[in-house]
Amino acid sequence: MDLEVVTIGTELLLGFTLDTNSAFLGQALAGTGARVTRRTSVPDDPSAVASAVAEGLARTRFVLTTGGLGPTKDDLTKKAVAELLGLPLEFHPDLWDALTARFARMGRKLAERNRCQAEVPRGAVVLLNPRGTAPGLWIAGDQGDVIMLPGVPGEMQGLVTEEVIPRLEARSRGRVVRSLIIRTTGIPESNLAERMEPVEETLAPLTLAYLPGLEGVDLRLTAWEERSEDAERFLAEAGERVRGVLGDHVYGTGHADLAAAVLEAGRDRGWTVAVAESCTGGMVGERLTAIPGSSDVFLGGMIAYSNRLKEDLGVPLRILEAHGAVSEETASAMATAARGRWGASVAGAVTGIAGPAGGTSEKPVGLVWFAAAIGGEVSTDRWVFPGSRYEIRARATQFALWKLWRKIRSAGPP
Amino acid sequence: MDLEVVTIGTELLLGFTLDTNSAFLGQALAGTGARVTRRTSVPDDPSAVASAVAEGLARTRFVLTTGGLGPTKDDLTKKAVAELLGLPLEFHPDLWDALTARFARMGRKLAERNRCQAEVPRGAVVLLNPRGTAPGLWIAGDQGDVIMLPGVPGEMQGLVTEEVIPRLEARSRGRVVRSLIIRTTGIPESNLAERMEPVEETLAPLTLAYLPGLEGVDLRLTAWEERSEDAERFLAEAGERVRGVLGDHVYGTGHADLAAAVLEAGRDRGWTVAVAESCTGGMVGERLTAIPGSSDVFLGGMIAYSNRLKEDLGVPLRILEAHGAVSEETASAMATAARGRWGASVAGAVTGIAGPAGGTSEKPVGLVWFAAAIGGEVSTDRWVFPGSRYEIRARATQFALWKLWRKIRSAGPP
Repeated sequence: MDLEVVTIGTELLLGFTLDTNSAFLGQALAGTGARVTRRTSVPDDPSAVASAVAEGLARTRFVLTTGGLGPTKDDLTKKAVAELLGLPLEFHPDLWDALTARFARMGRKLAERNRCQAEVPRGAVVLLNPRGTAPGLWIAGDQGDVIMLPGVPGEMQGLVTEEVIPRLEARSRGRVVRSLIIRTTGIPESNLAERMEPVEETLAPLTLAYLPGLEGVDLRLTAWEERSEDAERFLAEAGERVRGVLGDHVYGTGHADLAAAVLEAGRDRGWTVAVAESCTGGMVGERLTAIPGSSDVFLGGMIAYSNRLKEDLGVPLRILEAHGAVSEETASAMATAARGRWGASVAGAVTGIAGPAGGTSEKPVGLVWFAAAIGGEVSTDRWVFPGSRYEIRARATQFALWKLWRKIRSAGPP
Repeated sequence: MDLEVVTIGTELLLGFTLDTNSAFLGQALAGTGARVTRRTSVPDDPSAVASAVAEGLARTRFVLTTGGLGPTKDDLTKKAVAELLGLPLEFHPDLWDALTARFARMGRKLAERNRCQAEVPRGAVVLLNPRGTAPGLWIAGDQGDVIMLPGVPGEMQGLVTEEVIPRLEARSRGRVVRSLIIRTTGIPESNLAERMEPVEETLAPLTLAYLPGLEGVDLRLTAWEERSEDAERFLAEAGERVRGVLGDHVYGTGHADLAAAVLEAGRDRGWTVAVAESCTGGMVGERLTAIPGSSDVFLGGMIAYSNRLKEDLGVPLRILEAHGAVSEETASAMATAARGRWGASVAGAVTGIAGPAGGTSEKPVGLVWFAAAIGGEVSTDRWVFPGSRYEIRARATQFALWKLWRKIRSAGPP
């Protein structure tokens, strides 16, 4: 079941808009058993739209378009496709009523000249769009199916999830594809692969992909099965085996966020968290406070970027002088001081050399010391991260969150 | 001078990789007078690559491909295009020597089976790629030109800037296009448009676009001229007129970053900066410390997320109790305390309600108070920002940076 995507919009070709719709569609449709075999972007030009759709229909069963459906674009896509397929446009009073009601709710009046928005190519199925004015349209023709969706990402995504995927799945007579992403961190890809070896042998017919990123390595397990229940069961079982060998390197599945996991673990146990950041400069705090409701658990912290602020936090001057700002001793003192002065259950500290300058042979760019203080006890870790200033900081932030998460969980189940 | 882009990679169609190359190419090529008329993405499949290139050549003069050139992809694109155009592959000893030398510098040896990497379709111009192993290739044929570039963003971008753009410009007999982005902040789009009215009338034949984002509204001025010197002069003159009416709402041009502008203004004057953040939770510090060398100017700050940390910073309990954490008085006290305790030349403070919960009719979600303290003097601002939690925090961070920037510049020229 092959499918081509045509994204419509001059702004896409000028590069002023990043084509996130295509990435969403690729991922979302893979789950239905449909395979995106080609993606074409054309400008807001009816003949370019018609030729891209016609070429797609000559090659595959389904062509899905995004964009060119709104009122300002003058329903470019609808007209071009209707003409291509030789279908007259018919006025749908119920669609007109729905549009009028939608406008009325917003305190606006729909002008008579907008009647074209309620016109539908003969025989097309209307995919109602509760998030906007332009509905999606599905034309099932002899040459193949054309699915037209609006280009606004939120509207397009809603229609794909609620209308397109169920219809494609119903049409799919072949296998369905399901994936499970297992998010790991705190372990480089090569070590992860070693640990995974015994499990990998047991995974077939599932496939496994390693997806390294700044937050760690994601593992994508994929199942192609005739029945979605089978695919989901195989994935769940394999996921358990993976968790079994990787332990607390696994912090979640799917779109799980480690900062959210830290807050959840803290909330479950009635714990509070504080941070002291040097090279990450606020990134750990930013990640934690990005999560709604973080104030239950996260007290705040110090961006102890300069030595002046490290001292003010409570790091003794003699430690800074004897060991330097980037050292195990300074990291420990930062975490201990942060925990003590604010009475947090656990405090994390990060100090390192993010570069590009400032490295020495003894303390290279990428060197980061971590500490976590809990009760009277402090533990430390040392890493040398690869990459740019941004990458080093992002990796260090993720590691700091991971350390906090493990510290909180080490207290036992909630 | 029309051009089609073909991006090659199964991962693009699966949606696991966002196609940032296409956006870069659209923007970069617009400047040469070349117009991207279509963009096609195909999987790592020689017949799909060949058909997309052939279709492109049937429609336009130039087809530019990215991807499928590296050794792991087995030089898919090079072979498919050479076969399509009927060109034999020829071994280039100088290219082989360059590759061998590159590997030797990395302490590695190039295996004999990699000889295909030094093969070039007959008559193709080799575009040397100092950032990677796969060179770009430019084949000027009777049916049109095919330009093949590697898919790794950094390598592709380097080759486009250094090799492709100069060659396209030399070929362009029509007009060249040049753009100037003027970055503004601290003023909503509608107010900006009002202020711009008298200038807008003087801009023709330049065009003006408003590009609103979380860091403010960028203004894009575009000139189409026969000579690039003319285009650049018109843009520079118009840019001056825009700066004239917008004053310190303009913080830079092109890719200027407001955090870098804060640090530069501080460095020029020998000033130091500290922050106290509540709702932004470290984002202001993160923006500042993202810039290499920020430690000259930025001392650090407090993530005063909870009231406990606001008190520890130095906000009197009676202010928190009388006015609440999100208030003009608390913002002032945060900035004053931060400046005083760390001896910063200027300290900025942010406290607000980022949502989605926690809003009241008096203090709605999006309400943010800002303060900046300098010497004995504190100034405050109140904004209500629209959008999600992330958007409110990002907008507040940008406003806090803008306030710091203006405070530093208000001290006069360096």
